[in-house]
Amino acid sequence: MEGHSVGVDIGGTNTVIGLFDGNFALVGKSVIATEPHRGPGRTSNPASYLDALAREIGLLVEREGGGRHPVRVGIGVPGMVDPLAGVVLGASNLAWSQVPLAAELEARLGIRVTIDNDVRMYTLGECMAGAARGRRHVLCVTLGTGIAMGMMSDGRLIRGGSWYAGEIGHDPVDGESSRCPCGKTGCLETVASATGIARLASEAIRRGTDTRLRELGRPVNAYDVYEAAAAGDREAAAIFRFAGEVLGGKLATAVSLLDPEMLVIGGGVAAAGDYLLEPLRRTLSLRYGRKPGPVVTTGTLGDTAGLIGAVHYALARESEDRKDEAR
Amino acid sequence: MEGHSVGVDIGGTNTVIGLFDGNFALVGKSVIATEPHRGPGRTSNPASYLDALAREIGLLVEREGGGRHPVRVGIGVPGMVDPLAGVVLGASNLAWSQVPLAAELEARLGIRVTIDNDVRMYTLGECMAGAARGRRHVLCVTLGTGIAMGMMSDGRLIRGGSWYAGEIGHDPVDGESSRCPCGKTGCLETVASATGIARLASEAIRRGTDTRLRELGRPVNAYDVYEAAAAGDREAAAIFRFAGEVLGGKLATAVSLLDPEMLVIGGGVAAAGDYLLEPLRRTLSLRYGRKPGPVVTTGTLGDTAGLIGAVHYALARESEDRKDEAR
Repeated sequence: MEGHSVGVDIGGTNTVIGLFDGNFALVGKSVIATEPHRGPGRTSNPASYLDALAREIGLLVEREGGGRHPVRVGIGVPGMVDPLAGVVLGASNLAWSQVPLAAELEARLGIRVTIDNDVRMYTLGECMAGAARGRRHVLCVTLGTGIAMGMMSDGRLIRGGSWYAGEIGHDPVDGESSRCPCGKTGCLETVASATGIARLASEAIRRGTDTRLRELGRPVNAYDVYEAAAAGDREAAAIFRFAGEVLGGKLATAVSLLDPEMLVIGGGVAAAGDYLLEPLRRTLSLRYGRKPGPVVTTGTLGDTAGLIGAVHYALARESEDRKDEAR
Repeated sequence: MEGHSVGVDIGGTNTVIGLFDGNFALVGKSVIATEPHRGPGRTSNPASYLDALAREIGLLVEREGGGRHPVRVGIGVPGMVDPLAGVVLGASNLAWSQVPLAAELEARLGIRVTIDNDVRMYTLGECMAGAARGRRHVLCVTLGTGIAMGMMSDGRLIRGGSWYAGEIGHDPVDGESSRCPCGKTGCLETVASATGIARLASEAIRRGTDTRLRELGRPVNAYDVYEAAAAGDREAAAIFRFAGEVLGGKLATAVSLLDPEMLVIGGGVAAAGDYLLEPLRRTLSLRYGRKPGPVVTTGTLGDTAGLIGAVHYALARESEDRKDEAR
């Protein structure tokens, strides 16, 4: 590609910024707080955040760009994004609604800005340069505070009729009844996300189950459960087993529908490794049945995946537009 | 489009053939038995069937073509099809395996033959000329002897990494344990297909449930259950309610993943109308949650949908190939 590019991954807490050279090699990285600058009511005004983001991009380029200015910015946003209009339709964790993010940042930086949903950008990153490199049919599920899926079919990302594809985190699980912040009960997120795993552990403690998690003396989180499982705690291992089985069941439906070559498990909870993946693979294999099923693996790029995907997407949109101009 | 086209829909029992004019208007239709011409072992030799199919196409053209010869044939096959190679990889109802269907029929007819999976051709038909006309994000589920889904995302059919996308019929349903011919238990087909509905009715009779279906004096089929429901039979209505709820649950997962504008319900069981659709819509709405969800409707083209889809696909492949030649 021509020139340097900036990739941005906006998270609920932090925003990661990466500077890439013309060969997609990461030459520098920076992190700022996302800070929800709330305006009146429940909707925030992102103007001061965008000022901070533009400033930080400038500093990163100055520090690491070797005198070269980037020619494009690609951004992944945790929410519902219209990538053609460059507008964030809604991002509940940021309290954003109808934010013309691309135009706002273009006005501040003077170069082209392309945006899309963060999980789709993560998926594109793993497909271009990570675990799924060279594959055209891939499902990526990200397990963090929430759960979402990115889907690549025949080399194209699936975005849905209202840019809402992949929102599997709020699909209910039969037999589960825990209340989800979304208003429904038993959503997949209440079991297999970091939040869900912490909830299952808290409930086990409350029930009086024998587990070393009782001795923490503070609210338990998913990483505590992983550490306990790794130290031989049977209840902690059972929680990951249950989460893996529930997730494996949902993924079996997704695999039946989309027939991917590979399933990439990403997000913080993927760090639990085989505590989660072994029951997931077993359930997927039993329920899907067809042999061989897709390869199930963890992502390899970590939080760089979203940056790489965003930069690749920005570049792809440029060539799309050049094609349109040529018509 | 230029010239007449022939659309073919190969079913397990019958093969429907349609002759279309240059405006996609159906000018004549014919039906022959599919007749599985079994060869040695479990695999059939389709040569005599293909001879019969080629002959019937010739007769239909002679009778209804007004002196014009068709320039292409499009075929929907009930099985796993590689449409680029023109090969039927496997079709269990026909006992076909690795049949180079397109080449075999081209040799007999002397014109280009394009093939693909029947449910995808049905989906394309309903999208081009039926219930989903003009829409780019559509899911079609066909409820017959089996259950499968056709998926249109941003105007493109999803085919999967091994041409196996949409095989939702063998995705297990939690809490169900009826044995499926595929070897697994509790598959969606054991509940919500015509076979599944007949099974649920037979089991209700065997349990001694009070239903007029007891008085048939022969094995009950899905249409019997529909007629009984329409005549006020509460058990028959309860069977469709259960099937609709189970199907609605699976469709909620599919809708969460793919965010379609419309869900088209096709196949023979769709004729049950609101006995099936009302519980399906209610369950989908409860489980999906997001308002408004996709429009849920029945197909409008019946068994012509697959023919129209196959002809449209044949034409699309011709222009793809012309584009490739121009490169």
